[in-house]
Amino acid sequence: MQLGLIGLGKMGNNMRDRIRAAGHEVIGFDPRPEVTDVESLQALADRLDGPRVVWIMVPAGDPTRDTVVELAGILSEGDLVIDGGNSKYTDDQPNADLLAEHGIGYLDCGVSGGIWGKENGYGLMVGGSPADVATAMPIFDALRPEGPREDGFAHAGPVGAGHYAKMIHNGIEYGLMHAYAEGYEILTAEPLIENVPETLRAWSKGTVVRSWLLDLLIKALEEDPGLAEITGYTDDSGEGRWTVEEAIRHSVPAHVISSALFARFGSRQQDSPAMKAVSALRNQFGGHAVQKSD
Amino acid sequence: MQLGLIGLGKMGNNMRDRIRAAGHEVIGFDPRPEVTDVESLQALADRLDGPRVVWIMVPAGDPTRDTVVELAGILSEGDLVIDGGNSKYTDDQPNADLLAEHGIGYLDCGVSGGIWGKENGYGLMVGGSPADVATAMPIFDALRPEGPREDGFAHAGPVGAGHYAKMIHNGIEYGLMHAYAEGYEILTAEPLIENVPETLRAWSKGTVVRSWLLDLLIKALEEDPGLAEITGYTDDSGEGRWTVEEAIRHSVPAHVISSALFARFGSRQQDSPAMKAVSALRNQFGGHAVQKSD
Amino acid sequence: MQLGLIGLGKMGNNMRDRIRAAGHEVIGFDPRPEVTDVESLQALADRLDGPRVVWIMVPAGDPTRDTVVELAGILSEGDLVIDGGNSKYTDDQPNADLLAEHGIGYLDCGVSGGIWGKENGYGLMVGGSPADVATAMPIFDALRPEGPREDGFAHAGPVGAGHYAKMIHNGIEYGLMHAYAEGYEILTAEPLIENVPETLRAWSKGTVVRSWLLDLLIKALEEDPGLAEITGYTDDSGEGRWTVEEAIRHSVPAHVISSALFARFGSRQQDSPAMKAVSALRNQFGGHAVQKSD
Amino acid sequence: MQLGLIGLGKMGNNMRDRIRAAGHEVIGFDPRPEVTDVESLQALADRLDGPRVVWIMVPAGDPTRDTVVELAGILSEGDLVIDGGNSKYTDDQPNADLLAEHGIGYLDCGVSGGIWGKENGYGLMVGGSPADVATAMPIFDALRPEGPREDGFAHAGPVGAGHYAKMIHNGIEYGLMHAYAEGYEILTAEPLIENVPETLRAWSKGTVVRSWLLDLLIKALEEDPGLAEITGYTDDSGEGRWTVEEAIRHSVPAHVISSALFARFGSRQQDSPAMKAVSALRNQFGGHAVQKSD
Repeated sequence: MQLGLIGLGKMGNNMRDRIRAAGHEVIGFDPRPEVTDVESLQALADRLDGPRVVWIMVPAGDPTRDTVVELAGILSEGDLVIDGGNSKYTDDQPNADLLAEHGIGYLDCGVSGGIWGKENGYGLMVGGSPADVATAMPIFDALRPEGPREDGFAHAGPVGAGHYAKMIHNGIEYGLMHAYAEGYEILTAEPLIENVPETLRAWSKGTVVRSWLLDLLIKALEEDPGLAEITGYTDDSGEGRWTVEEAIRHSVPAHVISSALFARFGSRQQDSPAMKAVSALRNQFGGHAVQKSD
Repeated sequence: MQLGLIGLGKMGNNMRDRIRAAGHEVIGFDPRPEVTDVESLQALADRLDGPRVVWIMVPAGDPTRDTVVELAGILSEGDLVIDGGNSKYTDDQPNADLLAEHGIGYLDCGVSGGIWGKENGYGLMVGGSPADVATAMPIFDALRPEGPREDGFAHAGPVGAGHYAKMIHNGIEYGLMHAYAEGYEILTAEPLIENVPETLRAWSKGTVVRSWLLDLLIKALEEDPGLAEITGYTDDSGEGRWTVEEAIRHSVPAHVISSALFARFGSRQQDSPAMKAVSALRNQFGGHAVQKSD
Repeated sequence: MQLGLIGLGKMGNNMRDRIRAAGHEVIGFDPRPEVTDVESLQALADRLDGPRVVWIMVPAGDPTRDTVVELAGILSEGDLVIDGGNSKYTDDQPNADLLAEHGIGYLDCGVSGGIWGKENGYGLMVGGSPADVATAMPIFDALRPEGPREDGFAHAGPVGAGHYAKMIHNGIEYGLMHAYAEGYEILTAEPLIENVPETLRAWSKGTVVRSWLLDLLIKALEEDPGLAEITGYTDDSGEGRWTVEEAIRHSVPAHVISSALFARFGSRQQDSPAMKAVSALRNQFGGHAVQKSD
Repeated sequence: MQLGLIGLGKMGNNMRDRIRAAGHEVIGFDPRPEVTDVESLQALADRLDGPRVVWIMVPAGDPTRDTVVELAGILSEGDLVIDGGNSKYTDDQPNADLLAEHGIGYLDCGVSGGIWGKENGYGLMVGGSPADVATAMPIFDALRPEGPREDGFAHAGPVGAGHYAKMIHNGIEYGLMHAYAEGYEILTAEPLIENVPETLRAWSKGTVVRSWLLDLLIKALEEDPGLAEITGYTDDSGEGRWTVEEAIRHSVPAHVISSALFARFGSRQQDSPAMKAVSALRNQFGGHAVQKSD
């Protein structure tokens, strides 16, 4: 089938390749002339036979909203828009409502797999109507990994459910990474462990903690022994924050995911006002030494 | 080669099968007549040609120590004892020292893989001397998963390193399980997600969070939808506590692993004295309602 | 001076008494005839000489907003409205904007002190313009504790700052209470400590941890030894959640306050889906026993 | 009465002054000639009439143990030794046992109050026999704050109970300080709050969060606005670690106190191996940028 694909960055570009490799026709649009197939969203729409399916793969927030607004004016009744970016789930219903005013369908699709998805396939979580899901299924089948559909694709619920599931997926990801990270740090601190990377590698098969993330940690340590080339400064792209906010909204104790999120915040602080306060207090009541700033 | 195997419980029994399937001769001892191959430790020793290799697979603490003490009186110079149980790493050096007085070698081996290890192989982390490791390598090769040795076996360091690595492995396991568990709880609380098990299953392939533990969670939810048949009461067997104690000893911030450990403690409380205190305080200063006990 | 006071619940009633005791004239309105001084908001406005000062002390959210909307239609240019409830700080600017359309001033005032404030005075944190603060200062002086004004009153910033400060005050309160609560629970678990209440009481003077909350905990334990009459079920009224959301918005690691919040969530769960998942996983990989639900 | 006081550091020196001011005779010993009253422990013992009471106020661990051992050889049957330092509670019974072999009594006394105790009095928690407590009561009365004895003194239980209570007191202290610290950090990050120190000072009276630690934080901010002169590097002296270990031993969820402890560990890390691992993982799966080390 045909697909219009808007946004040909790191993810979109790989997805175009994978969908084409499955035998579909993909018309890609991107503002960068060197990667785009067409000059404009209008040109993209003109190149597709109706009813059209258009996949948005641009940054969450304003860029995605702006694209939806523009598509609402370009596409026709019966067309279908899929937001495959990392949008917040609360953005989905407003987008769906706007498009519905023009008779255009809407699906939200959480996409996991990062830069490896082109080769391994992507895990997909979709929200929207069953009819719209059926329309786009050939594309989902092209993107998801080989094997049973259910292992890499779920129709999680109505509009918003796809991004909701992806948000929680990423929240879990924060916790998983931090669990390995804490264990790694303890191992590096312990003289008995003479070779940390080899010890981690021995967990690759058979053990309870084996996972793809563990494989990647082993790979990272092979490429940069001791992780000497990087600092611990770690960004976050929003889903971890949203997951904790959802935990609060649903009154779910989320000690682990919030701890992993807060550790990232801490990694970006040159000096912590909170710890200055603690240090100042110790000095006040106990005369304990403080470290003077330069 | 020949192996003496002491302890034929859930783990030991499976391991005997796997080692025998690899072509080795295993003489097993267990106090339960229905599973044992010999009547006593002395009989086990008599059945083995020297230099003997004897693997202990009994509960950590006193049972393991008692077995080591008994073996010190039965085995001969040049023999080798391997503790494959979940012993605390601080038990290893005293055991090694006692055996060394009789010229008997000692290895500690962390074994991961649970009840699936018989089929999939076990991840192994070993502490001890290179010579002793070489002696036992055919057994390690029989127990570990197929494929490159390094993916399921590591000689982590001197005596104690094997159990140290296994302890941290289990600490990480606490964090991993709890990250999935928190995400699972949020998903179950959110009406948008119409089918939680299908959503989790869609993460099986391609996603960043794919892992064996995730596979097991999906399986558990298939076998007991909504986990309706069980409560949240969750035991712990020590390694999580030890991991947090090691984090404290090495001044490593272990927010995630400790949170997972404390959540288990909480799961076993009928009512929490700490929360009673908070509730009482709210009543004191704000006149907020408290829940009366029956 | 004259003050109109809307809302004569637990807090409002006490505040009316304290302000009157300071020599001011307070006209109170409440829908309950047994406590109100006037029959309606209009009647309240009629009883006050202009420029009027009206203090709102009703539940946060819709009740407060509805009162502001009604006052916007009743009051006159030059009057002043103060929201002294536990409103979310993001409600303040919209309220101020609506009133400003009618030339009516607005202050938000965080009030701390609970049911003891009538006697001890209330800690006050105010947001708004210096001119409006000056207008209401006699009332603030009546409400705050004896002694230097700065020890119980702050003009924290523009509109919103008062409720922001109160929100953080309450977030800190969560952490403080939980720190005492954890210590209390450990003490009750330790056989060496033969008399927990006496031990806590010995911290009342001289120690680093002395505080009003500690005094209240000692009092609660005197009134209900062992806190035997209550359960640990603990509600929350919003400020703790908002504080953690603010921590997320400002990228502040808030391990302690979030832990205290999550512990309250946990106290209200009959059974935790997350812990069920952990227990199910342990059973899956290790054959560990689970507790069957009835 | 007479008291021998060993250790005239920051704490011991102040305590000597306070006990003398209460009318008792204090013979102090310290290796530093400029502060000591006698030349040796033997000289100290010689200066006291029997039955002697000797208070040890030296660093925990070896220095305290060494002093106890030496006193066991110098003192006589019927004398009494009090360890008022920050010893781990598990050190107490061995010290008591050693002294008991010579007929010498033993009390452990947790002392809180820091450098302010000389003026305000010290909170005291004591472990040991009622008879020994009665012997030393005049000294306890001299050290504790004015007012009812129960507000600043408790006989918490048998040998070890005093240091146990002090350990938990300090663990709570970690949590309290960190709760204020997190709130302080959020306030400093929020533009609405134009004057953080004034806002905190307004909590001094009447509020739920008023405490001595809050008073000290206000004082610290007055002396060093913005805490500009210090870094967040914060040491710990052991009691926080022990408290978390006790929580683990008693299966008490201690999310708050452990978080406060781990935050101190984090404050001392130039770069965190754990966060390096997280950053490396994000780069591996998502191609997310890492920060290169110099």
